[in-house]
Amino acid sequence: MTDTSIHAAADADSAGPVRFARPLLTLEEKASLTSGADFWMTQAIDRVSVPGIMLTDGPHGLRKQVAETDHLGLAESVPATCFPPAVGLGSSWDPDLLRRVGEALGIESAVEGVAVLLGPGVNIKRHPLCGRNFEYFSEDPVLAAGLGVGFVTGLQSKGVGASLKHFAANNQESDRLLVSSDVDPRPLREIYLRAFQRVVTETQPWTVMCSYNRINGVHASQDPWLLTHVLRGEWGFQRLVVSDWGAVAQRVPALRAGLDLEMPSSGGRTDAQIVAAINDGTLDEEVLDRAVSRVLDLVAKASARPPMSGPFDVDAHHQLAREAAGRSIVLLKNDDALLPLARSTTLAVIGAFAENPRYQGAGSSHINPTRLDTALAEIRALSQVEVRYAAGFGFDDAESADDLRAEAVAAASACEVAVVMLGLPARSESEGFDRQHIDLPDEQLALLDAVVQANPRTVVVLSNGGVVALPFADQVPTILEGWLLGQAGGGGTADVLYGVVNPSAKLTETIPRRLADTPAYGNFPGEHGHVRYGEGLFVGYRWYDERALDVAFPFGHGLSYTTFAYGEPSVVTRSDGDLEISVPVTNTGSVAGREVVQVYTSLPSSRVQRPPRELKAFASVPIQPGATADATMVIRREDLAYWDVRVDRWIVEGGAYLIEVGASSRDLRVSALIEVAGDRLKLPLTEESRLSDVLDHPIAGPLLRVALTAMRAAFRGPQEQAEAMEMMLASMPIGRMVNFPGASITRELIAKVIAASLPGDT
Amino acid sequence: MTDTSIHAAADADSAGPVRFARPLLTLEEKASLTSGADFWMTQAIDRVSVPGIMLTDGPHGLRKQVAETDHLGLAESVPATCFPPAVGLGSSWDPDLLRRVGEALGIESAVEGVAVLLGPGVNIKRHPLCGRNFEYFSEDPVLAAGLGVGFVTGLQSKGVGASLKHFAANNQESDRLLVSSDVDPRPLREIYLRAFQRVVTETQPWTVMCSYNRINGVHASQDPWLLTHVLRGEWGFQRLVVSDWGAVAQRVPALRAGLDLEMPSSGGRTDAQIVAAINDGTLDEEVLDRAVSRVLDLVAKASARPPMSGPFDVDAHHQLAREAAGRSIVLLKNDDALLPLARSTTLAVIGAFAENPRYQGAGSSHINPTRLDTALAEIRALSQVEVRYAAGFGFDDAESADDLRAEAVAAASACEVAVVMLGLPARSESEGFDRQHIDLPDEQLALLDAVVQANPRTVVVLSNGGVVALPFADQVPTILEGWLLGQAGGGGTADVLYGVVNPSAKLTETIPRRLADTPAYGNFPGEHGHVRYGEGLFVGYRWYDERALDVAFPFGHGLSYTTFAYGEPSVVTRSDGDLEISVPVTNTGSVAGREVVQVYTSLPSSRVQRPPRELKAFASVPIQPGATADATMVIRREDLAYWDVRVDRWIVEGGAYLIEVGASSRDLRVSALIEVAGDRLKLPLTEESRLSDVLDHPIAGPLLRVALTAMRAAFRGPQEQAEAMEMMLASMPIGRMVNFPGASITRELIAKVIAASLPGDT
Repeated sequence: MTDTSIHAAADADSAGPVRFARPLLTLEEKASLTSGADFWMTQAIDRVSVPGIMLTDGPHGLRKQVAETDHLGLAESVPATCFPPAVGLGSSWDPDLLRRVGEALGIESAVEGVAVLLGPGVNIKRHPLCGRNFEYFSEDPVLAAGLGVGFVTGLQSKGVGASLKHFAANNQESDRLLVSSDVDPRPLREIYLRAFQRVVTETQPWTVMCSYNRINGVHASQDPWLLTHVLRGEWGFQRLVVSDWGAVAQRVPALRAGLDLEMPSSGGRTDAQIVAAINDGTLDEEVLDRAVSRVLDLVAKASARPPMSGPFDVDAHHQLAREAAGRSIVLLKNDDALLPLARSTTLAVIGAFAENPRYQGAGSSHINPTRLDTALAEIRALSQVEVRYAAGFGFDDAESADDLRAEAVAAASACEVAVVMLGLPARSESEGFDRQHIDLPDEQLALLDAVVQANPRTVVVLSNGGVVALPFADQVPTILEGWLLGQAGGGGTADVLYGVVNPSAKLTETIPRRLADTPAYGNFPGEHGHVRYGEGLFVGYRWYDERALDVAFPFGHGLSYTTFAYGEPSVVTRSDGDLEISVPVTNTGSVAGREVVQVYTSLPSSRVQRPPRELKAFASVPIQPGATADATMVIRREDLAYWDVRVDRWIVEGGAYLIEVGASSRDLRVSALIEVAGDRLKLPLTEESRLSDVLDHPIAGPLLRVALTAMRAAFRGPQEQAEAMEMMLASMPIGRMVNFPGASITRELIAKVIAASLPGDT
Repeated sequence: MTDTSIHAAADADSAGPVRFARPLLTLEEKASLTSGADFWMTQAIDRVSVPGIMLTDGPHGLRKQVAETDHLGLAESVPATCFPPAVGLGSSWDPDLLRRVGEALGIESAVEGVAVLLGPGVNIKRHPLCGRNFEYFSEDPVLAAGLGVGFVTGLQSKGVGASLKHFAANNQESDRLLVSSDVDPRPLREIYLRAFQRVVTETQPWTVMCSYNRINGVHASQDPWLLTHVLRGEWGFQRLVVSDWGAVAQRVPALRAGLDLEMPSSGGRTDAQIVAAINDGTLDEEVLDRAVSRVLDLVAKASARPPMSGPFDVDAHHQLAREAAGRSIVLLKNDDALLPLARSTTLAVIGAFAENPRYQGAGSSHINPTRLDTALAEIRALSQVEVRYAAGFGFDDAESADDLRAEAVAAASACEVAVVMLGLPARSESEGFDRQHIDLPDEQLALLDAVVQANPRTVVVLSNGGVVALPFADQVPTILEGWLLGQAGGGGTADVLYGVVNPSAKLTETIPRRLADTPAYGNFPGEHGHVRYGEGLFVGYRWYDERALDVAFPFGHGLSYTTFAYGEPSVVTRSDGDLEISVPVTNTGSVAGREVVQVYTSLPSSRVQRPPRELKAFASVPIQPGATADATMVIRREDLAYWDVRVDRWIVEGGAYLIEVGASSRDLRVSALIEVAGDRLKLPLTEESRLSDVLDHPIAGPLLRVALTAMRAAFRGPQEQAEAMEMMLASMPIGRMVNFPGASITRELIAKVIAASLPGDT
C-alpha cells in the first residue's frame, strides 16, 4: 500500500464532498470495500494499495481468533488479559479506571495488529433477564455514558478504534435478530439513546455498531432515521457505522440508510446487489462513495498507527485487572463490621467457585485469559493462618450434594468465619439467549442455609453476570456482590476480604426483591417479533421510586469499611448553562476510602412526566481518614432536558430544580434548589388547540375570556354540573366549540385568537 | 312525513346498494341529514316528510333537556328515574337485571318521544382515576359485554335505540378530545374492543357512538379501520355510527371513514364541506348516500314505534331502582356476622351522606330524579327502635369538624351499632376530568377513627363512583361498598343493612391497596396528546395476578349473609366448539341468597403471553337455604382465542385449558381441565424465518438438520461457547446464515427449505 492514497482519501473527506476515490476504484471495488473480506477483516484492494484491517471482539479483553473454525466466530482465541466485564468494571463508577483499562486494551490490540476492538456496549439494562447484561454498564444512561466515555477515550488514545454498540434499543437476546423494540419517543431519547449520544459527541468513536434488532418496526441496520438523521444529523457523528455480525437484512436499503460496512463477508453476494442497484439507477452512486470514504478513512486511521511490537506487559496488565476487580466488588451489607478480616482469622472458604472461578460470560466477549487467579489461592496467600476449603456443591451431579454440604458445615463450624462463594452456572448466562429466572441454584441456597446455621459469621461472595435474588439477605451479616471479575478476580476478592482494598463499588442496577417487581415484567421478551417498552421512562430505579416499591438493594448502593459525611452542596450556574455542584465529603472513619458521590435531580414544578429523581452526575473521590475532599461535578444543561414530542426536540423546562446528593439513590444526604431558566417553547395555536392552552397564551387568552364569562353567566343547572362544565371545556379544541349551538364563541373569534398567537412564534 | 318513503328507504338499504334517496333528496338535503339539526335532534326534511328524531343522554336514566340553555347541554332536564349508574348496576353481575332496567328506560324514553338513549358505556376501567369510571361496567371485557348485552336488549325491546359507547379505547377524561390511546393490537382486540364486539354481534344496537379520543394517532371519528374495517367488515354492524358530541375534527374524512351522523349541529358549516367535496370530486357521493341511508333507516325504526302516552309508572320504576340498588351493594367484609342488623338493634347513623345522598356522577349522565330516598329515612322506616343521627362532617367548611365529630362519637357510644356513611364529594367525580387520587377526605377518615374507637361494632357504607383506598379495612368489622346507587339508593342500603335483601353483588374491579400498585400507574393520563397503554394485556386483576400483588379486595369478590359450597364442575364441548360448564352450588347457610359464580380459564401450555387467568363466563344464581342449583354457563370458543399479529386474526390455541370456578378471582373453589382443538395456523417460511421455526417445520426441518450437525462437529472451542453457539443460532434468520464464512448452510439449501415449506400452507 501507499499511505498517500489513503491519507488523501481521508483528507478529501474532511475537506468536502467525496470525490477522491472515483478515478482510482471501479464500482465493483468500491462495493467490495463496504463489506468484510472474511469474518474479521475488511477488504483489501491491492491494486491501489488499500490494506484490509482487522476488527475483533471485545470489549473487556481482546478476542482475536487463532483461525476460523466455526460458523459464529466463537472458537479459541489468542491469550489476552481478561479484565472484569462491564458489569464489574461499571460498578466502580469511575470513568478514569475505565480509561486506564481502555489504554491497556489498546496496547494489547495494537500488539496484535487489531484496528478496532468491538466495544463498549452502552445499552441499558432494561430487564434483569437479558442474557447479555454482563456486557452492559447500567440501568441508567448518564452512568453508562460516563463509563463509556472513559473506555473509548483510553482505547482510542492508543490508536485503536472503539465500536460503540449496540446501536440501539438492543436490550434483550430473545429473538434478537428480528424483534422490534417498540419504544415511545421520550424513553427512546431520554433512556435508550442518551448514552450513545453522549459517547458519540464526546469521543467520536472510530465506529458505531448498529444492533441486530428492529426499532419501532425498522431494522436498526437499515434505519435512515437512526443511522443518519439522529446519529449524523443531530449528533454530528462523522465516522463509520458497521453492522453487528449478520445484522444486515437487506444490503441496499442498509447502505442507503447509512450503514457503511457490512460484517462479516457476504462472499460478494450483497456487494453485487449494490452494483446492480447503481447500474439500474435505483441507488445513487454518491451513497456508495460516502460509505467508501468512511471505510477508507477508518483504514487510514488504523494504518497511521505505528506498528507496536509485543509482547505487552502481561504482569502489569494482570495487576491492573486485579485492581479493577477490587474496584468492582460491591459491599452490599456488613453487619457488625465482619469485614475486613484480620489475617489471623481462621477461615473456611466454601463453594466451588473458590477453585473454579466464574469470571466472564459466554458469547462473542469470551476471552482466553493470560492467567487465572482463584480466590482460594489468593486468600491463602494473604492469610497468616490455615484456610480450610470445602467445595460445598458440584458443577455436575456426579458428587453427592449431602456429602459436600456436610463437609462444608464441618469446615464452617471449625473456623471463626465462613466465606461462601455462590454464583450462577456458566451455562446460564450468555450472549444469544436470555435467562429464565434470577434465582441462584437451589443446592447453593441450601448449602448457605446449612453453613449459616453452623456459623452465623458468614460472608457471602457472589459471582453472577446478571442480577440474582437474595432471599438470604436478612440472614447473613455480610454480602459481597462480585459480579464477574475477570482473570484476577480471585486476587481482587482476597484484597477486599482482608481490607487490602477498601470496597468502593456501587450498584449500577437495582437488586429487586423479586422478579415480579421489575419494570418490564410482562413486557419481556415480547412475542411474534415485537417487544413493547411499556414501562416508558420508568426503567430501573426510576420504576421502584415512582411506585414506591421496596427493593433488596437500591441503585447506587455500596458500603465501605469507612464512613463518609456530606457537607452542604454549593451549586453554581456556569455561563454555558451547565450546573457545577461541589460537595465537601469527609471520611469519618479510620481507614482510607473512596466514595462515589451521586447527584440526582428532579423538578417538582414540572409540567411533564418525570421520574421522582434521575442521576445527572457522579464522582469517585478517594479520601484519607479524617480528611475532607470536595466532590465537584457538572450537570450538563442538556441532561436536564426532556424530549418534547410536540416539537421533536430537547426542551429544558424552567423552574426550581431539586438537586439531591447522596451515597445511593435511596441514601440522599444533602440537597439544594436551583433556579434554571427554561428554553423558549411556543406552540402556535390552531383550531385544534385546547382551550386551556389558549387561555395560557398571553395575547390570545384574554380574547377568549370575555366569551367564556358570558357563557358561564348563562348557565342554569345544578352547581356540580356547572363545575363539571368548566372542567370539561378546558380540554376542548377551540375550533370545535363553535359547533355547539348557543355557544358565545364564534368562528370569527377563533380566527382572531389564532391570528393573535402567530406573531412571535418561531 | 309519509312513512312510505322512509320505510322504502330502509327496505332498499337492506335489499342492496343504496339508490332510493337520490331521486327524492338534493345533495344539500342529503348532507344536512348526516348532522344534527340542533343539540339533540336530527335534521327533518319536511319536503319529503322525513321527521327529525331525538337522541338523549343517559344511560342510567333519561336526561331530556327542558330547553337549550347552555353550551354543553348540561342544564336541567325533565324528571326521570335515576337508576344506579353502571358502577352500581354492573356489580350485580346480572344481565337479566340490566335487561329489566333497560326495559324501564325504554318506556321512559318512549313516553318522552326519545328515539335513542345514549348508552350503554362498555369501556374498560383501565385506571381508577378515570373520571367517568362510574359510567362504565368493569375492568373485564367479558363482564362488560354481558352487562351491555342485557342493557341493550331491554332498551331496544321497547322500540328505543341504544348507542353503544364510547367506541373505542376511551378510558380517561384528561385531554379527551385529542389524546391518542396508543395501544398494541393484542390488548386493543382482547381487552378494549372485545366488549364492543360482543354487544354489536349479539344485539345490533341501533347506533354505535364513536369516542372523542384518537387511537394510535387516528381520531376515532375518522378512523376507517375502526368504523368500517372492524366494526362493519369484521363484526357485521349494519346500523348507524354517531359521533360523540363534538368528536368530529374533520367532517369529510369522518364521513368517508364511516361516521354517519355528526352531533350536535354544526350550523350547516360541515354539511357544506361535504357538498363541496362531492362537487369538486374529492368525495364519492356514494359515501354520502350510504350514511344517508343509515340515518333514514334509524329514523324509520324510531318512527315505527307506536307513540306511548305518559306518564310512566313512577312508583314501579322507583321500586325497580330500589331493587337494583340492593343488588348493587357489595358486602366487602362482615366479621362476626355484624350484618344483617336486627330491627331492634339501637343504631347510630353517622355521616352527612345519610341525609344528602351521593347517588350519581356529574356530566352528561346526570339525571333529574323523580324522587330521592335518603338512607336515614329508609333505615328509620325499617327499624323498630329509635335511630340516632349525626352528620359527622360537613360538605363545606362552615361547621366545626370537631363539634360534628364529637356529636358522632356520642351517638356511636350510645348505640349498639354505628353505621358510618362515607364517600367522595360530588365535585371530585365527573365526566370531563379525571380524579387526582383515590383517597377519601381526611376529615371522613378521622371521623371513622373516632367512631370505631367509641364503638367497634361499626359498619362502613361507602358512596363513590370510582374506587377508593380503604386504609381502615383491617380496623372495621363490616364494609358495604355502595358505589353510586341512584335515587332509591337509600332504600337499597336499608334493605341490605336489615337483611331484607341478602347482598349478592361482586366487585367488577379490583380494589388496590394503593394507587401506586395499579397497572397504568405512570402511564396515565399521558401527555402531549398521547397515552401509552404500556401494561398491555395486564389490565385490572390480570395485572395483580401476573405480578402476584396483594390487593385490598380482589376482582369478583363479594360476600353474602349465607354461604355457598361448590360441587365438581362438568365441562362439555358443544358441536359449535363452545364449552358448556355446569357447577352444582349449594346454599349451606340459613337464608336465601344469590351467588355469582365465575369461570376463569388459562392455558398452561400456551406459547403466547397470557394473564394467569381470565374471566370467560359467569352466572347469578338464586338459591334457597339447603338447596343446590346448577350454575350453567357457556365459554364461547371465540373467547378462548388470542389475537395473532402475524396473521391479523383470532387464533384458538390447542391444548388442555384449565377451567377454574369460584366466588372471586382469588377464591377459586373447583377446577377442571379440558382439551380444546386448536385453529390451524401455518406460517410460510421465508429467508427471514428463524432457524427454530424452520426446525419445527415437519418437512423443511429435517433438511437443515444435516447441515447443522456438520457445523457442530466442526466446532473447536470451550464447551460453554459451544452451548452459547447453539442457543444463538436458534433465533437467526435462515437467509442470513449463508453470509457467515465456513457455514455449511448454502443458499441453495435455504431455497430448498423455503420451497419445501410452501405446499400445504394457506
